[in-house]
Amino acid sequence: MSVIYLDNNATTRIAPEVLQAMLPWLGERYANPSSVHHFGQQARHAVETAREQVAAAMGVRERQIVFTGSGTEANNLAIRGVLAARPGKRHLITTAVEHDSVLRPAQQLEREGCRVTYLRVDALGHLDPADLEDSLNDQTALVSIMHANNETGVIFPVEKIAALTAAKGIPLHVDAVQTTGKLRDASGHSPLNLADVPVDLLTASAHKSHGPKGVGILYLRRGTRLRPQVLGGHQERDLRAGTENVAGMVGAGLALELAMRHLDADFARVAALRDRLEDGICSRISIARVNGDRAARIPNTTNIGFEALQAEAILMLLSNHGVCASSGSACSSGSLEPSHVLTAMGIDRRVVHGAIRFSLSRFTTEAEIDRVLDLMPGIIERLQALQR
Amino acid sequence: MSVIYLDNNATTRIAPEVLQAMLPWLGERYANPSSVHHFGQQARHAVETAREQVAAAMGVRERQIVFTGSGTEANNLAIRGVLAARPGKRHLITTAVEHDSVLRPAQQLEREGCRVTYLRVDALGHLDPADLEDSLNDQTALVSIMHANNETGVIFPVEKIAALTAAKGIPLHVDAVQTTGKLRDASGHSPLNLADVPVDLLTASAHKSHGPKGVGILYLRRGTRLRPQVLGGHQERDLRAGTENVAGMVGAGLALELAMRHLDADFARVAALRDRLEDGICSRISIARVNGDRAARIPNTTNIGFEALQAEAILMLLSNHGVCASSGSACSSGSLEPSHVLTAMGIDRRVVHGAIRFSLSRFTTEAEIDRVLDLMPGIIERLQALQR
Repeated sequence: MSVIYLDNNATTRIAPEVLQAMLPWLGERYANPSSVHHFGQQARHAVETAREQVAAAMGVRERQIVFTGSGTEANNLAIRGVLAARPGKRHLITTAVEHDSVLRPAQQLEREGCRVTYLRVDALGHLDPADLEDSLNDQTALVSIMHANNETGVIFPVEKIAALTAAKGIPLHVDAVQTTGKLRDASGHSPLNLADVPVDLLTASAHKSHGPKGVGILYLRRGTRLRPQVLGGHQERDLRAGTENVAGMVGAGLALELAMRHLDADFARVAALRDRLEDGICSRISIARVNGDRAARIPNTTNIGFEALQAEAILMLLSNHGVCASSGSACSSGSLEPSHVLTAMGIDRRVVHGAIRFSLSRFTTEAEIDRVLDLMPGIIERLQALQR
Repeated sequence: MSVIYLDNNATTRIAPEVLQAMLPWLGERYANPSSVHHFGQQARHAVETAREQVAAAMGVRERQIVFTGSGTEANNLAIRGVLAARPGKRHLITTAVEHDSVLRPAQQLEREGCRVTYLRVDALGHLDPADLEDSLNDQTALVSIMHANNETGVIFPVEKIAALTAAKGIPLHVDAVQTTGKLRDASGHSPLNLADVPVDLLTASAHKSHGPKGVGILYLRRGTRLRPQVLGGHQERDLRAGTENVAGMVGAGLALELAMRHLDADFARVAALRDRLEDGICSRISIARVNGDRAARIPNTTNIGFEALQAEAILMLLSNHGVCASSGSACSSGSLEPSHVLTAMGIDRRVVHGAIRFSLSRFTTEAEIDRVLDLMPGIIERLQALQR
């Protein structure tokens, strides 16, 4: 059975060109980039070229890019690293709808005596910058907000938020795992024009944009003070120790370069397919309703609630037909808790429990979308019949 | 120019079978193991099979294995994680010759108010278990020692040390990055018989045994209390968040399985080649002297000092002939400090500055060793002539 993969916010297929570029570094060119011999320096060059590719995609200098082992590690490094570098400031501001890789470090900081403000969102998933402005104070060490929500795709107004934090000189971290390689600024960079928008730290992840798993990226504005969290050798300019995952970094660099090369064309097509899926489901299934603001979303994501049904049952029937979707973050799967994102939006519990995220990629085809549209009404009817 | 790679303590070539096993997970089987659909569960199965392979090589249960992003991260997790889980105990014991991924977390703990004892070693690189015994006290949170030194290959008496720590109920962490897959116990497991030797945490790294970079391993004895350091999703039983590097873990599992399958035959051959290299250099070059106890070393490593010469110059000339060696840990390369390991052994500074580590692997051939033996006298003579 062929797979119809609509779970690209969880992870993506490695682009064939990316895998080809990685292979030499998994094969004959296996040296440690920290080794001084020529063979090692060849690996060093590959790592630094990958860093330049990432920097070019973001429109920043390569010295501002730190590779980590995952987006999660990059988020942890940003939050714990800034808080540790500013020991006099014991207040963190974030939102109620962040990924667990931000929320759980925030909760840990609370246990250690920090104060954390979790900004609320409205029914469409938006936060009010005025709430942020009210929360900023002279104890605030960091503001950490996501660029786009992984479950709904709703985009936060980073530009407005950055203007507020910059005006008070408070560092701003943006979790851009779901937007890097998917959104671009008018300047041609992804996900934002970091030359103009005063973001201090920004997280990205290679495997969300057709790169390999095991590589995260943390952008640091020049002068940002950060205490490293993994200590050892001098890798990554002393900000993240450990032998470099050379093949992974090479893959990450090319994945972002490719994403940028094709972004406009790809995501216009992806957005059209997403809308076709969303409109098709909503027109065929009366209980379907879209969660989150349809007007301000990343182009590949739709979150659709099916009232009074269980998401797990829908996913299982879809999976039996080879269709991959999710009920929220893969990272929180297995927990029985309803989505904290949809709950924070005040969405009815009966809709939250039946919410499905479909997330597309540039490899998604119209035929795949039409196949899902053919399948969904029968799946929903079958589950409704079971409940009668 | 073909490469003669004698820097296997820095990193190793991925075994061809290991790369083949990784490829499907870099290609068509790209799902996130945390996804509930069948495609995700296929990836989950791969991760858990890899964990079983690692556990089988170590002779432990798979639930005792945590994958991280590097050996460095595993060492950091062990040290910071145990100290954080035992907040009433503020004393760490380690040695003066550990890898930076142990020493630098120890130094950070000192800055945070912990007391750290750095056990000394003698001229052959040995520590005296009586020194450890004298240092243990009721404030000791953890003892962290390496199994074998990365620069000299000298093996510490983990069994004796473990008896001392276990008698006082103090957790013991062993950095076995340089021994896992290279040494095995009579029980047939690597690097130790963990069923008998009361080690509580043990670090290994896939890329030191012909697996991929980007995967570390932390063994945890049942009941070991550990505070996770990277927080987010529920991966690795809540001990290390972040999307799993599936291909890397698959590679790590097979790499250790292969290492175990061939260990006895491979390392008998490797030890013979190492001795041939060492004896050949010492018989041809009068200023050469071996650093560390030749009788108690891992089979692939020799550290040879060339008095009054600069290691960097020797390495450069070797590299010009395609020979890769090192002057110590790749992780501390680039620093101008002399080796802290050889310095701690009390070795003359003029020898320390001219010390070269050759580290072999099962892929090393006799022809390669003979080529290095042909080259070395001329290289040393040339550098000596420059100094006259």
